[in-house]
Amino acid sequence: MNKKKILLVVCDGMSDRPVREFGDKTPLQVARTPAMDAIARSGVSGMMDVIAPGIIPGSDTAHLALFGYDPYKVYTGRGPIEAAGAGIEMAKGDVAFRCNFATVDSDMRVIDRRAGRIRDGTSDLAKALTGMRIDDVEMVFKEGSEHRGVLVMKGPGLDQRVSEIDPHVEGPLLESRPLVPEAAKTASALNEFARRSHEMLEKHPVNESRRAEGLPPANIVLPRGAGSVGELDSLEERFGIRGAGIAGVTLIKGICRLVGMDVVDVPGATGGLDTDYLEKAKAALRSLETHDLVFVNVKSSDVAGHDGDFRLKVQVIESIDGMLGTILKDLHEDVIVAITADHSTPVTVRDHSADPVPVAISGGGGRVDGVREFDEISAAAGSLGRIRGMDLLPILLGMANRSRKFGA
Amino acid sequence: MNKKKILLVVCDGMSDRPVREFGDKTPLQVARTPAMDAIARSGVSGMMDVIAPGIIPGSDTAHLALFGYDPYKVYTGRGPIEAAGAGIEMAKGDVAFRCNFATVDSDMRVIDRRAGRIRDGTSDLAKALTGMRIDDVEMVFKEGSEHRGVLVMKGPGLDQRVSEIDPHVEGPLLESRPLVPEAAKTASALNEFARRSHEMLEKHPVNESRRAEGLPPANIVLPRGAGSVGELDSLEERFGIRGAGIAGVTLIKGICRLVGMDVVDVPGATGGLDTDYLEKAKAALRSLETHDLVFVNVKSSDVAGHDGDFRLKVQVIESIDGMLGTILKDLHEDVIVAITADHSTPVTVRDHSADPVPVAISGGGGRVDGVREFDEISAAAGSLGRIRGMDLLPILLGMANRSRKFGA
Repeated sequence: MNKKKILLVVCDGMSDRPVREFGDKTPLQVARTPAMDAIARSGVSGMMDVIAPGIIPGSDTAHLALFGYDPYKVYTGRGPIEAAGAGIEMAKGDVAFRCNFATVDSDMRVIDRRAGRIRDGTSDLAKALTGMRIDDVEMVFKEGSEHRGVLVMKGPGLDQRVSEIDPHVEGPLLESRPLVPEAAKTASALNEFARRSHEMLEKHPVNESRRAEGLPPANIVLPRGAGSVGELDSLEERFGIRGAGIAGVTLIKGICRLVGMDVVDVPGATGGLDTDYLEKAKAALRSLETHDLVFVNVKSSDVAGHDGDFRLKVQVIESIDGMLGTILKDLHEDVIVAITADHSTPVTVRDHSADPVPVAISGGGGRVDGVREFDEISAAAGSLGRIRGMDLLPILLGMANRSRKFGA
Repeated sequence: MNKKKILLVVCDGMSDRPVREFGDKTPLQVARTPAMDAIARSGVSGMMDVIAPGIIPGSDTAHLALFGYDPYKVYTGRGPIEAAGAGIEMAKGDVAFRCNFATVDSDMRVIDRRAGRIRDGTSDLAKALTGMRIDDVEMVFKEGSEHRGVLVMKGPGLDQRVSEIDPHVEGPLLESRPLVPEAAKTASALNEFARRSHEMLEKHPVNESRRAEGLPPANIVLPRGAGSVGELDSLEERFGIRGAGIAGVTLIKGICRLVGMDVVDVPGATGGLDTDYLEKAKAALRSLETHDLVFVNVKSSDVAGHDGDFRLKVQVIESIDGMLGTILKDLHEDVIVAITADHSTPVTVRDHSADPVPVAISGGGGRVDGVREFDEISAAAGSLGRIRGMDLLPILLGMANRSRKFGA
């Protein structure tokens, strides 16, 4: 049987709850979504607990599950995911931290945890810091968006179980302590890194200019969210597939890299409301020529959910549907297409919720049930039933004739 | 987002199978249940394997699962649950037994395992036994209903893996043996307890009177169902919620106490067919003012199932529905209400069965599917799909905005 290709479109936070003022309907029920409905109508639908019933997924853990990984086994803090997103290659034993550029006074008290939300000059500051050596540990540092950055410690005998130096409020800098004896070296390197980062940044030209402009200097780096990467076999090792990931957001790109996908850079894919849907559609079609699995994340639906804006969410969903329509128009009928969300972000909650998400899969000569629309209520009547996020990719691989037989 | 309260109503053994003589309908299909139907109509329905598909739940294991605990990990014999029900505080390492007062002859042969179903005087007999010390082990004993009692051994080095002394038929008393070497001390204490209980009860005034009346003396205690309590974090520790439990039956009260619920004493809640439904409804509404989760168990539906009486079961279900209607009338619309059963007790089986049970959840601005009636067939078309008992409380907590996020 010929192996088929798979297109997985994840609309971040699209799933929702009914809202009384809009006829007790969800944004997805109200939105005109001919492309999503076409997938539902020509395939199978169901509901999905992305992590497990009653668990509120983060976007990071959710995507790990959607790629077939058990997030409870893989996930050890956000640092490694941010590091992967920033393009820092992590090896086993490395410890990664999310960082803020911050401002401390002369008594080493944190007076602004975001250094006045500094945007310009962080790449110069990062260049000054990266490559620092503390004994046999190398510090790899890279700036992120705005005041953010990533620190990866590389060297023997490191351990992520250390307490934080970031006080998380204004106040004196904390001393990192090992939470287990094996982490003593890491805690001490972390304290030394903070001390030296202050020394190097205090007189840095970027900060001299900031002071001249009356802006708080970015004169220290505050690492947090320590984590190391567990044994993570790539998608290719686990399932024999080559994946391509299309996403605007650093966090999601990071997860794509962690599982060994090629991250496709799409001009204009911002992760915001202004993302270029047409470019994403083109990139998806192009990537299907070279890869077995193409994954597309669209973040704007989540943004609208966090804003609590029902009308905006409807509008965003219709834009995403337009992107999907563009893809479907030129898609080979043998490609398995799946549409879903990584979690619910109800406009009434303005945050992630544990409500299960709808999922629809069509193409490749698979089964067809009676569901005719794609939304949180219609999908529940579908023949997929109620599945777990971790089961989605195996189901898609099965439909794509890419599963392995267990037994004789 | 505001946290909502949860009301969980469990109708013991209500779920059933169709019966030919009643038009191939179940008691729940035949009964008029406007309140249960209202919950189904305004929320989501589904089917639930309380333990797992094909497993027949006991009421004890079922309730542990419904409270989010894995009964396979928690459950180590019925003794600890009876002990909790009788109000005996159990500590880690304690071993508890269910007991019968019984009658032995002079050769220590059991001639009546229930001592003529003794009802009066057992509290005096229990007082004579409790506090007994065997080496460094303290025996806490409390009478139960009729001929029943509970024994808790407290002391160092105990282990529940011992063979029973209760022959379970008339015949010679058995010698308890350790089933693992670690249980040698417990087995020897158990044998000594039986010997001394005979010594102390043989001449007890209660038994002198019984003999005078021609009744068999309750001249020995037969412990069985040894168990110890594993590490059991309370609902508050696990989910951050304060629970209140309303139940007539000792066993269910015991489970409520085990998981750290406050047990609400309701005058007239008997656990039998004569239970006072109105008082239970009032207690539920009152408890919702002070607690996050209010759990109500109604036992009468199970009693009717065990009796194999279809008409009685219909009548009992309609009484329970009346109780529910009283609650719904005064319930805040923000409360999440769930109605379900802990297992099926089909009138054609007259015992528990493995058939999954219907469940319906409404309130709190959650989703609404197309199910319009609450019964074993209608619920299966609902958007909840087929869930496990252990997932119910996490799902309710998610709908109540009380779940925790896993990830970023």
